[in-house]
Amino acid sequence: MKEFELQCPIPNASEALIKMGHGGGGRMSQRLIDDVFLKSFANDSLDARHDAAVFNVGSKRIAVSTDGFVVRPWRFPGGNIGSLAVHGTVNDLAMAGAKPLSLTAAFILEEGFAMANLQVVVESMHAAAKAAGVEIVAGDTKVVERGKGDGVYIVTTGIGEVLSTSTIGPQSVRQGDAVLLSGDVGRHSAAVMSVREGLSFEEPVLSDSATVHHPALALISEGIEVHCMRDPTRGGLCSILNEIARDAHVGITVDERSIDVQEDVRGICELLGLDPMSMACEGRFVAFVAHQHIERALGILRSFPVSAEAKLIGRVEGYPGEVCVRSQIGVTRVLDLLSGEQLPRIC
Amino acid sequence: MKEFELQCPIPNASEALIKMGHGGGGRMSQRLIDDVFLKSFANDSLDARHDAAVFNVGSKRIAVSTDGFVVRPWRFPGGNIGSLAVHGTVNDLAMAGAKPLSLTAAFILEEGFAMANLQVVVESMHAAAKAAGVEIVAGDTKVVERGKGDGVYIVTTGIGEVLSTSTIGPQSVRQGDAVLLSGDVGRHSAAVMSVREGLSFEEPVLSDSATVHHPALALISEGIEVHCMRDPTRGGLCSILNEIARDAHVGITVDERSIDVQEDVRGICELLGLDPMSMACEGRFVAFVAHQHIERALGILRSFPVSAEAKLIGRVEGYPGEVCVRSQIGVTRVLDLLSGEQLPRIC
Repeated sequence: MKEFELQCPIPNASEALIKMGHGGGGRMSQRLIDDVFLKSFANDSLDARHDAAVFNVGSKRIAVSTDGFVVRPWRFPGGNIGSLAVHGTVNDLAMAGAKPLSLTAAFILEEGFAMANLQVVVESMHAAAKAAGVEIVAGDTKVVERGKGDGVYIVTTGIGEVLSTSTIGPQSVRQGDAVLLSGDVGRHSAAVMSVREGLSFEEPVLSDSATVHHPALALISEGIEVHCMRDPTRGGLCSILNEIARDAHVGITVDERSIDVQEDVRGICELLGLDPMSMACEGRFVAFVAHQHIERALGILRSFPVSAEAKLIGRVEGYPGEVCVRSQIGVTRVLDLLSGEQLPRIC
Repeated sequence: MKEFELQCPIPNASEALIKMGHGGGGRMSQRLIDDVFLKSFANDSLDARHDAAVFNVGSKRIAVSTDGFVVRPWRFPGGNIGSLAVHGTVNDLAMAGAKPLSLTAAFILEEGFAMANLQVVVESMHAAAKAAGVEIVAGDTKVVERGKGDGVYIVTTGIGEVLSTSTIGPQSVRQGDAVLLSGDVGRHSAAVMSVREGLSFEEPVLSDSATVHHPALALISEGIEVHCMRDPTRGGLCSILNEIARDAHVGITVDERSIDVQEDVRGICELLGLDPMSMACEGRFVAFVAHQHIERALGILRSFPVSAEAKLIGRVEGYPGEVCVRSQIGVTRVLDLLSGEQLPRIC
């Protein structure tokens, strides 16, 4: 019986065991966080459900964020788990309006992983950290037996200094805010999936994995009224817009026509039956800014290569807690949070 | 041929693959750190090779430490991976003379792990954090497929405020310093090994897993001249004394008769052929203090239950880089760093 057990992404009333869907960034992940983690750990920082926690150290406000990386395979077109682990955590800090200062890295290595591959990963981390202007100041390595890991897992934790004087988070989102998106979506998922599924193209789809702290922090330093920022990783735009709509008690309406998806990424989505709105990016972010600052904010974003294609994609309007998408043909649909797992181990 | 491959703990000239010994805290671990991590990441914090990195934030000195926990089995007499993950990181901060402020926790869960067990782990973490006076302010969860993990792995990262005005680390160790040990050794390893090997006793050996920041920080606040502190986790006393002797370019001589080993722990060691000097503790620490402060430091340590049995175990004297042990029968031997792995996945 057990062998034929299906991996059902629809929430199961008796969640007695951890399922892949618990890691997908959708409804099952939310429930795991609510029912297990928040129930025990409840405190203001965690309850804020932001990508980074913020606290005071003397006169400074410090942000801290932690993220585990288990992407399969560890190497993909446009990056590897090492560069990804740096980009992901630097971006989480930036989303809290914090300038990254230092990173720590903990490695869980599987017995038998090639030393040469570890070297590739570590060198990519170093290069990514250097490019982002942060140092990896502390680390740890554990080794587990063959079959108890998958080559290499990395957990990075970032510490940053909050530059914004106002709170950047869902609680600051206001009716009428503009929703800006820094570039095209879905490339990270598409790059990983094309390797995993053995799809070959003339030109491989490259992951968008990159740091976005320069444009994100420029919005703040240029005086743009930024209310919330978030990077659409696991669960993609769909997850983060739903999270913000829920936590800010606002409706969000976006126009699908203004959301860029590369032609080859769209092809992979159609082939694999995936929705670009739910695909992970690792070098994109969404900024909720005050209506009157749209043009100036877009100008700032477009001055950085990583966000050169930034666009206005929607507004804060509609039923509280609900995300609506106006489709290519002008029909409006509700964009609901995925239940479980669209793409396992994408980051 | 491959099936019969031995797990040889003796360093292998062609280290092309990660071996269990790379995670053991001995010579292979050191070489991995030197040849792969430090080579790429080289910076002052990492080069210091301390348990925690220290940097300035405004007028404050902040310590940060990260540690992965992969202990097998996840539950053992006296604790579980959740409490251990809190104790370990709080202790690493304390060893840098830092008062723990906040922790982050990243979970890597294996598909099929029982939700009820996860709840036990999380509740233990919460209780341990509460007892230590720290909050878990940020977290992350990833799920990997069956056979790509082992129930639950946890990485905790701690942030603390450095209380000491002088540098606490090997570079501050001086000739003639006293070496104090806060209690008996080997109980954590013995507790885990007794479960793993199915050894049963009338009274199970309990892990010593606990936080030691109260006595460690009391030494500082009471004005004891503390030069270096370190907790003997992986590789036990043997590893940390050798690391400090190497990094401080001093000799260290300890008297085995002053190092307490519980009777049942000694029994397990004899049964399994293990050396108590290399067994991991998770609630003990060694402090190098100025000669003239021995009695006062012991008095402070003994006023805390976790370090009530603190003793003077040795001195900084002898050949630079070498650790010598005077044995029970008065013979002196060199205590060399283990090559590879005595006890895999002990923390």
